[in-house]
Amino acid sequence: MNFFLSELVGTAVLTLFGCGVVANVLLAKSKGFNGGWIVIALGWGMAVTFGVYVAGKYSGAHLNPALTIAFALTGQLSWSLVPVYIAGQMAGGILGGVLTYLMYLPHWAETEDADLKLAVFCTQPAIRNTPANFLSEFLGTAVLSFGLSCIGANSFAEGLNPLIVGFFILAIGLSLGGPTGYAINPARDLGPRIAHALMPIKGKRDSDWGYAWLPVVAPICGAIAGVYLYMALVSPVAG
Amino acid sequence: MNFFLSELVGTAVLTLFGCGVVANVLLAKSKGFNGGWIVIALGWGMAVTFGVYVAGKYSGAHLNPALTIAFALTGQLSWSLVPVYIAGQMAGGILGGVLTYLMYLPHWAETEDADLKLAVFCTQPAIRNTPANFLSEFLGTAVLSFGLSCIGANSFAEGLNPLIVGFFILAIGLSLGGPTGYAINPARDLGPRIAHALMPIKGKRDSDWGYAWLPVVAPICGAIAGVYLYMALVSPVAG
Amino acid sequence: MNFFLSELVGTAVLTLFGCGVVANVLLAKSKGFNGGWIVIALGWGMAVTFGVYVAGKYSGAHLNPALTIAFALTGQLSWSLVPVYIAGQMAGGILGGVLTYLMYLPHWAETEDADLKLAVFCTQPAIRNTPANFLSEFLGTAVLSFGLSCIGANSFAEGLNPLIVGFFILAIGLSLGGPTGYAINPARDLGPRIAHALMPIKGKRDSDWGYAWLPVVAPICGAIAGVYLYMALVSPVAG
Amino acid sequence: MNFFLSELVGTAVLTLFGCGVVANVLLAKSKGFNGGWIVIALGWGMAVTFGVYVAGKYSGAHLNPALTIAFALTGQLSWSLVPVYIAGQMAGGILGGVLTYLMYLPHWAETEDADLKLAVFCTQPAIRNTPANFLSEFLGTAVLSFGLSCIGANSFAEGLNPLIVGFFILAIGLSLGGPTGYAINPARDLGPRIAHALMPIKGKRDSDWGYAWLPVVAPICGAIAGVYLYMALVSPVAG
Repeated sequence: MNFFLSELVGTAVLTLFGCGVVANVLLAKSKGFNGGWIVIALGWGMAVTFGVYVAGKYSGAHLNPALTIAFALTGQLSWSLVPVYIAGQMAGGILGGVLTYLMYLPHWAETEDADLKLAVFCTQPAIRNTPANFLSEFLGTAVLSFGLSCIGANSFAEGLNPLIVGFFILAIGLSLGGPTGYAINPARDLGPRIAHALMPIKGKRDSDWGYAWLPVVAPICGAIAGVYLYMALVSPVAG
Repeated sequence: MNFFLSELVGTAVLTLFGCGVVANVLLAKSKGFNGGWIVIALGWGMAVTFGVYVAGKYSGAHLNPALTIAFALTGQLSWSLVPVYIAGQMAGGILGGVLTYLMYLPHWAETEDADLKLAVFCTQPAIRNTPANFLSEFLGTAVLSFGLSCIGANSFAEGLNPLIVGFFILAIGLSLGGPTGYAINPARDLGPRIAHALMPIKGKRDSDWGYAWLPVVAPICGAIAGVYLYMALVSPVAG
Repeated sequence: MNFFLSELVGTAVLTLFGCGVVANVLLAKSKGFNGGWIVIALGWGMAVTFGVYVAGKYSGAHLNPALTIAFALTGQLSWSLVPVYIAGQMAGGILGGVLTYLMYLPHWAETEDADLKLAVFCTQPAIRNTPANFLSEFLGTAVLSFGLSCIGANSFAEGLNPLIVGFFILAIGLSLGGPTGYAINPARDLGPRIAHALMPIKGKRDSDWGYAWLPVVAPICGAIAGVYLYMALVSPVAG
Repeated sequence: MNFFLSELVGTAVLTLFGCGVVANVLLAKSKGFNGGWIVIALGWGMAVTFGVYVAGKYSGAHLNPALTIAFALTGQLSWSLVPVYIAGQMAGGILGGVLTYLMYLPHWAETEDADLKLAVFCTQPAIRNTPANFLSEFLGTAVLSFGLSCIGANSFAEGLNPLIVGFFILAIGLSLGGPTGYAINPARDLGPRIAHALMPIKGKRDSDWGYAWLPVVAPICGAIAGVYLYMALVSPVAG
């Protein structure tokens, strides 16, 4: 697979598994209804693990525009590839949302609460407060890019790395997901939000476009902060 | 073990652990009663992991007729072996159902709801809707065969692969299991359904034969679609 | 460590973690109170993992008289070592029970139900029915010894094996633990049962000696059946 | 990173993830509210795993003054480094508490119970009883240092060790965390307790300084006991 296809397919897998687990826990009559936060957090962790197994050998499996931009800024990716990566990620995010819609087709009409239906596709803050929500997404994504840089500095037995990365996403979900639902990835939030707007979901609300910029901008800023922090801490002088 | 025995024993292990975890969560007075979706999904994931540890070195551990057919279509298995594999898988599925019946022997009479007793053995859709249920099983199994192909393209440290495959089943259960209970495997569904029909389960209902074709046909179609998608995406031209 | 000490310490770790997780979920005012079956099953799985990390390099970490006897019958352990192994396992099981008593010291007086206090130390069937309970423990331990033999036939990256063994115990707990609480190990059941009888537990009931033979005898029979089944299936003729 | 920075950053990661998961489960309106003990125990386990991935290659990732002192006593660390390590750990514990405060910023005012707000930062015993609480923390940390010594005597495939260490913390949480909330680490308890005292948390109570000495002194004593027990058991004479 070329870079575009790899990021597209990997992000579609990530988003289908991620939005899928939220659908399973929130939609009426679903067999995983009310499964709890452990189901959500483990589902998103495994979503990333298998997105990485799919795309890792072709494109390195960024699957996240915030990481792609941060890696370009620090010289880990050529700027010329950034539009290709982000286009694939966004297309994958939309595709993952569409597949989730199809997978849970009869459950949309059975679910009354339109907020829950939106929550399957994109994040909504637990307490709406723009500066605080921005700070949470900024910190969460800074931890993500800093942590991935630290993890990447270790050696791994073959095939182990994507599992560890998925457990790291599990850890972020368990510990840092409470305030905003941890978008920490513009493609994972904006992509399925677009799918929510496009698909004929029965009884849906608007796609909350007023909030949509935050889980795009804050993760990008956070990811950049995280990689620069990593470079500052492990530079030869501090080393 | 020869191919037949290997697939039989591996599928029996898979089915005993898989049906067993549903019995533990659904049957009255069981110690895991009401244990939640995390127990179900993790139980099925580990069921596959240990089915693969049992059968992997002898037959490659398909443990699933839909995968066997898809792998034969794409040249990964000789067609002459397909009947041997599927016969082993079906026998294993029935045996796993019988062993589950024996394991939970005193609990059948204590459980009033006959639908729950059937659910131990085979899947029932959350919302009965043939086209939508078919689509869910089709998509779930396409993700399964596509994902297994992607996972198989990676290298693994010794002994790690069956664990990753089990975590992939865990992911499918967490995220895609809500609408139909994720049969995604004809032997896992039809095999124990036959056991349900044969065993003298106290207060049982009919074995829902009207639905039985769907978790056979849809997974076969889905598995084929998934492996062809994989071949199309990773062909040298696209590569 | 010599064989005796290794089995003693490994079984004490296994039993402390195993009885400990039951205490955490069942005893009044404990922080994990009502934590559910996932906590119980994962706690016992990790209990075995770390028992094996402790004792594996010194004695091979049987930690279970039923396995020791089965392995001796099949020539994997010298009969002269069997008394040494079992003595260590039983002493470790008692020690693990005593340590659990000490760990949860103020919680015994706060817990009213004497059955729950006994359940911390040893198993009680969900539905008391001697033949059925025997069958469940027999089948569960046959699966254990058969599965461990199959797992042992695989190669593992360094340090991975004890984790896989613990996940196997997790799988047994999730799927087969419902009817009898899965003793599947005489030392794990009889050892802490003796500790229950000896320790000055506030408001305790009798130690249910009428049932105590079953989780000793059935696991021994089951473990023997499992290893012979494994040898029959993987013998050169069948191979 | 030098030793100080490595221990600081690793302990900050550990504490942010650890206090974060408690915040997610206890604070009002958090998305993980009431997520249960499995969320808490898995969150703390993964907190340690990723603290070790961050700091392991620079300082060996003690991340715990009790372990640092025990390792110095047994000659595994030079005494001259002990103040450097502990200073980094304490600074990291405070920083982790501050970051948790910021991450969950709008949730403090929404949470009425001041005890729950304190519980995010530091441990409180389930039943206040100084000798029993001391014994629980002593035993828990003795198991920690003994177990880590045993785990360290095994070989691991590259990158596997921090995951196993995190699963060990998960096991301790599941099984031994019930009576006192398993501080087992002075930096993890005293550090964020100081953050609780310093930060302008809305509606906070006092920082329970009367108990603060116990999760410092008992873990140090326990860690020392555990490493000496390990040395006694695996010495050449006993070996």
